[in-house]
Amino acid sequence: MTLSIGILVVSDRAAAGEYTDRGGPAVHAWLDRRLTVSFDEVLTIVPDEADAIEASLRTMCDTLKCALVLTTGGTGPAARDITPDVTERVCDRMLPGFGEAMRLASLKVVPTAILSRQEAGHRGSTLIINLPGHPAAVADCLDAVFDAVPWCLELLGGPRLETDPPAWRPKHAPRE
Amino acid sequence: MTLSIGILVVSDRAAAGEYTDRGGPAVHAWLDRRLTVSFDEVLTIVPDEADAIEASLRTMCDTLKCALVLTTGGTGPAARDITPDVTERVCDRMLPGFGEAMRLASLKVVPTAILSRQEAGHRGSTLIINLPGHPAAVADCLDAVFDAVPWCLELLGGPRLETDPPAWRPKHAPRE
Amino acid sequence: MTLSIGILVVSDRAAAGEYTDRGGPAVHAWLDRRLTVSFDEVLTIVPDEADAIEASLRTMCDTLKCALVLTTGGTGPAARDITPDVTERVCDRMLPGFGEAMRLASLKVVPTAILSRQEAGHRGSTLIINLPGHPAAVADCLDAVFDAVPWCLELLGGPRLETDPPAWRPKHAPRE
Repeated sequence: MTLSIGILVVSDRAAAGEYTDRGGPAVHAWLDRRLTVSFDEVLTIVPDEADAIEASLRTMCDTLKCALVLTTGGTGPAARDITPDVTERVCDRMLPGFGEAMRLASLKVVPTAILSRQEAGHRGSTLIINLPGHPAAVADCLDAVFDAVPWCLELLGGPRLETDPPAWRPKHAPRE
Repeated sequence: MTLSIGILVVSDRAAAGEYTDRGGPAVHAWLDRRLTVSFDEVLTIVPDEADAIEASLRTMCDTLKCALVLTTGGTGPAARDITPDVTERVCDRMLPGFGEAMRLASLKVVPTAILSRQEAGHRGSTLIINLPGHPAAVADCLDAVFDAVPWCLELLGGPRLETDPPAWRPKHAPRE
Repeated sequence: MTLSIGILVVSDRAAAGEYTDRGGPAVHAWLDRRLTVSFDEVLTIVPDEADAIEASLRTMCDTLKCALVLTTGGTGPAARDITPDVTERVCDRMLPGFGEAMRLASLKVVPTAILSRQEAGHRGSTLIINLPGHPAAVADCLDAVFDAVPWCLELLGGPRLETDPPAWRPKHAPRE
């Protein structure tokens, strides 16, 4: 199974070319450092518009069959921050532990971490995780949750994802 | 008031007899160790099917008048893991602090703890708590939240539950 | 921009005059200690009734244009504890990190902290935060989250709120 990973940068300014996005490259660099398997990467930059975000998430999940989609940006409380809302709309089910763990990790760095509404969920066999837009926060959040991602993808029926150091997997097949 | 506690084991393999369930006995052993009052225990094993889970939860709450229902299994992200979804459907209101505290406690043991969607909520005066299926994780989760259970049951209008060591209770009647 | 802060005390007994509320004064004292700007304070006491709570929240947000509304009481699992439910109904969007952080902070003090269903969210540019009714718990919760409040109000388009010590703000304008 080919491993495809989508990176969806959600930013009005980056989409308008007024700003060179740094969140997407931070996600790429983190994956490049950690994954030991080759993977196809799909990078899309959209403004903070519900239709554009939703269409990109659907394409990455349904057409491009990404095993994992990582969004950056649009997770705060401001009016145009809608990435988690759209994520929730396209997901079959949410995985609240991701948001909790990412906020907790970010809270050790900055007290405003609790303002993030970032979430994770799955659409079919694709895991979607919202990351903040700030490059340093991207790494903090991936550090906090990525050890659970390879096993999650397998539970969702996705491909095997090898990392260095190896991620946690149960010693035996899951019991239920 | 007689104290009845329901243990609902949700597992395709245990329900089919392909596997000897260990989650249910782990719950029983934990309660037996901790509770100092006698109680009626109702143990039911069902497959990971929404109708079966829902019917059992309704019977335990509405017919058998269990003060507490503990489910084990079916809390992950896999397609057949639906225990939290059905729990949410039968509950009047959710108590998000339980899931947060159980995931946090489990996260100290295994990074995939964030994959658990386990929740708690109440249906009328019955408190329902989702536990994982793995016996060791059952104990970790009960250790993390049970100190709040006796007082919760009283707030819900249920029976008094005595434990050793004694659980927390306010020194005076609640003020509101 | 004039800064208005609403304090909504939700308590049957306080509303009936059977009890001298201590939650509201605890909120006032905390704000008085921490804020270095002058502000208009609106204090309302209502019983644990959905209509009364909802009407007060709407008035504080829409008519009185409060930048911040702090509720106390009614956050538990008991039948008449409905403050978070009504808060969710009037809010445009929830900010789950507040509830998580407040429960986590309270959990260091008392194991029953997980019973609190307290939440935060925004209605237009007003931030609403549920606090418990117990005066000591009010301070624990405000200590846990207030460092994120001034920046949150600015993201919501509200007034600047000065505190001592100063709350966190980004060094530069937000990047997206």
